[in-house]
Parts: sequence; structure tokens; C-alpha cells
Amino acid sequence: MTTQVAQDQLELYRTQIETALGQAVDGSRAPVSLYEPCAYVLSGGGKRVRPLLVMLAADAVGGSGAQALDAGLAIEIFHNFTLVHDDMMDHAPARRGRPSVHVKWDENVALLVGDLLVGVAYDHLLRTQTDRLRPLLDRFTECVVTVCEGQALDKEFESRADVSLDDYLLMIAKKTGCLIAVSLEIGGLIGGGDARQVAALRSFGEHLGRAFQIQDDLLDITADEKLFGKQTGGDVLEGKKTFVLLHARECPTLSAADRALLGRVVARDGLTAADVPAVRAVYERTGALERA
Amino acid sequence: MTTQVAQDQLELYRTQIETALGQAVDGSRAPVSLYEPCAYVLSGGGKRVRPLLVMLAADAVGGSGAQALDAGLAIEIFHNFTLVHDDMMDHAPARRGRPSVHVKWDENVALLVGDLLVGVAYDHLLRTQTDRLRPLLDRFTECVVTVCEGQALDKEFESRADVSLDDYLLMIAKKTGCLIAVSLEIGGLIGGGDARQVAALRSFGEHLGRAFQIQDDLLDITADEKLFGKQTGGDVLEGKKTFVLLHARECPTLSAADRALLGRVVARDGLTAADVPAVRAVYERTGALERA
Repeated sequence: MTTQVAQDQLELYRTQIETALGQAVDGSRAPVSLYEPCAYVLSGGGKRVRPLLVMLAADAVGGSGAQALDAGLAIEIFHNFTLVHDDMMDHAPARRGRPSVHVKWDENVALLVGDLLVGVAYDHLLRTQTDRLRPLLDRFTECVVTVCEGQALDKEFESRADVSLDDYLLMIAKKTGCLIAVSLEIGGLIGGGDARQVAALRSFGEHLGRAFQIQDDLLDITADEKLFGKQTGGDVLEGKKTFVLLHARECPTLSAADRALLGRVVARDGLTAADVPAVRAVYERTGALERA
Repeated sequence: MTTQVAQDQLELYRTQIETALGQAVDGSRAPVSLYEPCAYVLSGGGKRVRPLLVMLAADAVGGSGAQALDAGLAIEIFHNFTLVHDDMMDHAPARRGRPSVHVKWDENVALLVGDLLVGVAYDHLLRTQTDRLRPLLDRFTECVVTVCEGQALDKEFESRADVSLDDYLLMIAKKTGCLIAVSLEIGGLIGGGDARQVAALRSFGEHLGRAFQIQDDLLDITADEKLFGKQTGGDVLEGKKTFVLLHARECPTLSAADRALLGRVVARDGLTAADVPAVRAVYERTGALERA
């Protein structure tokens, strides 16, 4: 496939996904207090990475991407459920430039919209034409449990000062890696891949999920503010336990002064934007940026 | 089956259900912030009506109740998910004599525990040994969506003065009837029932679900406080739109004075326990109690 053909294919899939997501939920259906915010969530845009991965994985093993569309929608709808409930837990006022559901409506609506989306996700998964329904459902259901575990760990880590790099890697594997891995695995299953192909796709997905998250952590401290669209060093000011922070803290050659500075990051001890370059310098000295 | 044998069978099933629920989730598993409250929820007791119905329906069509145990657990775990999130939405401080999850822990924990329980419920459903997995999953998933719709309607009705008896019946059919109906339907499917048997069980379940709810409404206004364990007329004081209230309001022979009194119930217009007998008298005069 030439790059142009691949690009066209990607755009075609993306269009199919957007169109189908727009039809997944009818926002005018009763009870409107439930379906209107539900349609709002699914129309929020985003890169639709996960359903694209499902469809591309089906293609990759010689199957049909189109046959994997419903499963892709299931994954994307489930992903949006996690965003609605996570935003509630984090008291996040906005998502993709629009008010969060619990802000635009209220917390009860956000709670119920999330719950509904889980049902809608399973409904889409069950529409898949396949003789491999059981492994699809097994993998998807394991992932529902795992993502909840990841979110619980993430919340636990916010109030713990002793989070290790391994703790962090386990948390992101559960919270974000699992769904990426399952996207590729499910796509491979629907496309008719054999056991080795499906296992390879899953393993690739696990690495990709980790890379996504670490890239996010890295961009926060290194990206150009204008290009990135967020304040550089936001994670530092929030004391967020990112890959680079945890890696730097575990560096055996960390100086006492640097250790003290990182301790202030973790403790959210009055750091301002002016301190971000110093923290970044520690990340450079310890090789954490290089490592990420 | 004699009554004693039936009673023994019921006790056997109930014991099997309690034992299996106690093992469904390991409260010491990590992350403990998630699994400990999860085990707390499932150990909260209750009559376990729904899983019993699943097992008895499998028996009723000549199948094995034991084979339906996992599906029964799935239904009971899902039911407990709805209780955790409903208690959050209603700010209910207690459930079955113990603090609610969002009170004993916090709202984030309750949110996540509920989400996890949905995954755990599907996990149990998927353990069922059956060649009818697809209809099981279809019915269960429809019910997840329907129960969310019912809860959304219930919340809408709290702030609406124009709720009709039909609106109410639709709401309880979705919020509580559907899960009872699906319990019987799934049990019938697992037990190997034919299409007519399964349809009959479902229909019976719909009536049973409605009867349960109306009995609840009726007990609130007629039951002996000592036997019932709740304050008689609690629904009246809360302005809850129950079957008896809505039926009475739609009575064609309702007097102006009685209409005004019921209007005060709906508007929560300063009624006290002393007003409950007068409201009850209206319910009697309009035939609402008789009807219920």
C-alpha cells in the first residue's frame, strides 16, 4: 500500500466511525435527560484512535476492516464512558474544549450517562458478525474490570508519596494500555487472525499504549506551548506522578538538591511556572527525558 | 413437590447464592481501595430474589438450577451496582442498615465500585455453560440500557408535577420490572425452555416486577409501622409519586378538597405525619388502595 492509499483508507475509516457514532445514540430519544447528554458525549470528537486500531488490525490479518466497525464503536463508546466518569472524579471542568457532562448538566446525569454508555458499548460489540463472539466478550469484559482497577490505582497514587516507577507502569498498563491492546486483539480476532497473529497484535498494543502515555508525560515538560496547546510543565505544578518524575526520582546519581526539588514537586510545595525549567534540568541530568 | 421440599430447595439455592457471592470478589485483592468496598456491597444481604428466580426458572422448564447459578450471580451483582449508584444519586445515607458506599468511603469510590460491578456481572454471565450465550447477552445488555432509562425517568419525575399513572407504570417497568423479567427469561433459556415457555416466564416476570413495586407503594401507606420497619406514610411526606397517589389523582370522582390535598402531597407543601390518615382516606375513597 502506498502512503497515499493508506492515508485515504484511514480517512475512509475515520469517516465511517464518525458517521456510525453519530447514529449510535439518538439524542432526541426519551428519556431526553439521558439521551441528549449521551449524544453530546459521542459527538465530542477526538482522534478515534481506538476504533481505527480495531479496524486496521482486522485488515492486518487479511480480514475486513468494515466487519470490525461495530466492535470499534464498542471500544470507542466504552472509552467515552471512562472519560465521563473520570472527569467527574477529577472535577475536570472541560473535555476537548467543551464543558464536561457533570458541568453542563449535573453529577447525577454524568453518572447515569456513563452507566448507559457501558450498555451501549456491549450492544455494539454484540452486533459483530463473527463466530468468535465468546473471546471478544471475554477480552472486552476483562478490560472493563482492568480499566476500573487502573483508575482506582491512579486515584490511590494521588495521595501516596511512595509511588515507584513500576507502580506507575502497572497503573498505566491497566488504565490506558489495556484498552489499546484489546482494540488490536479484538480486531485481529474479527479479521480471522490465528493465535500467534492475535497475540502479536495484543503485545504490540500493550507497547503502543505505554508509549502513548509516556509521550504524553514527555510532551508536558518538553513541548512548545503554542504547538501543544497546554501550559508546559502542567504536570509539574500539579505534582502528577509521571514517568519522567518517577524515573528521575529512582536515579542512583540524583543529588541531594535535585532530590529536594523533586520532593517539592510531589508535595505540591508552592512551585510556580518559573520553577519548571529547573525541574526539566533535573529530568535531563538524570536521563529521564532520554529514557522516555 | 411438597411445600417442605420446595422450602428446602429454596434454602439450598439461597445458601449456594450467598456462598458464591462471598467468593465473587476478593476484598483483599489490589487495588484494595476498589475491591474492599466491592466485597462490602456484595456481603450486604438482601433476599437474593433475582438469582433465586433465575435458578427456579431453569428448574421450571426441566433444566438444572445449578447450571443457572452464574447467571443468577450476574443479575444479583448488576442489581447491586444499581443500588450503589442510585444511593449516590439519592444521597441515601444507608442501605440494609449499613452506611452506603459513598458515605462509608466517598463518592469516587462508589462511582468506581459500581462501574467495576458491571464488569464483574458480565464476567459471571460469561461463565454460564450454555449454547445460548448470545440471547443471554442480548437480553442482559438490553436490560442494562433499560434500567438506566428507568432511573433517568425516576429522576425526571421528581421535578415534574404532571406525571400520569401510565408514566409511572412505564418507569417502574424499566427501573425494576425489566430485571425481574430478564431473570426469569435467562433462567428459562439456560434451562433449555422452548420459545413459548421462555416468553411465558418473561411475561410472568413483568407482572411480578410490577406487583412487587405496587406492593411496596401500598405497604408504605397501609402497613403496621412495627412490622414494616419504616415510618408509615413516608412516601406521602416525601411527595413520592407512587401508584396509589397517581391512581387517586386520576380518579374522575375526586372532590376539589381531595384534589387540593393530593396537590399538597405532590408539592411537598408542609405535610406532617398527622396528615397521613387524611391522605390515606382519599386513597380509600378513590379506590386506589383497592386497585393496588
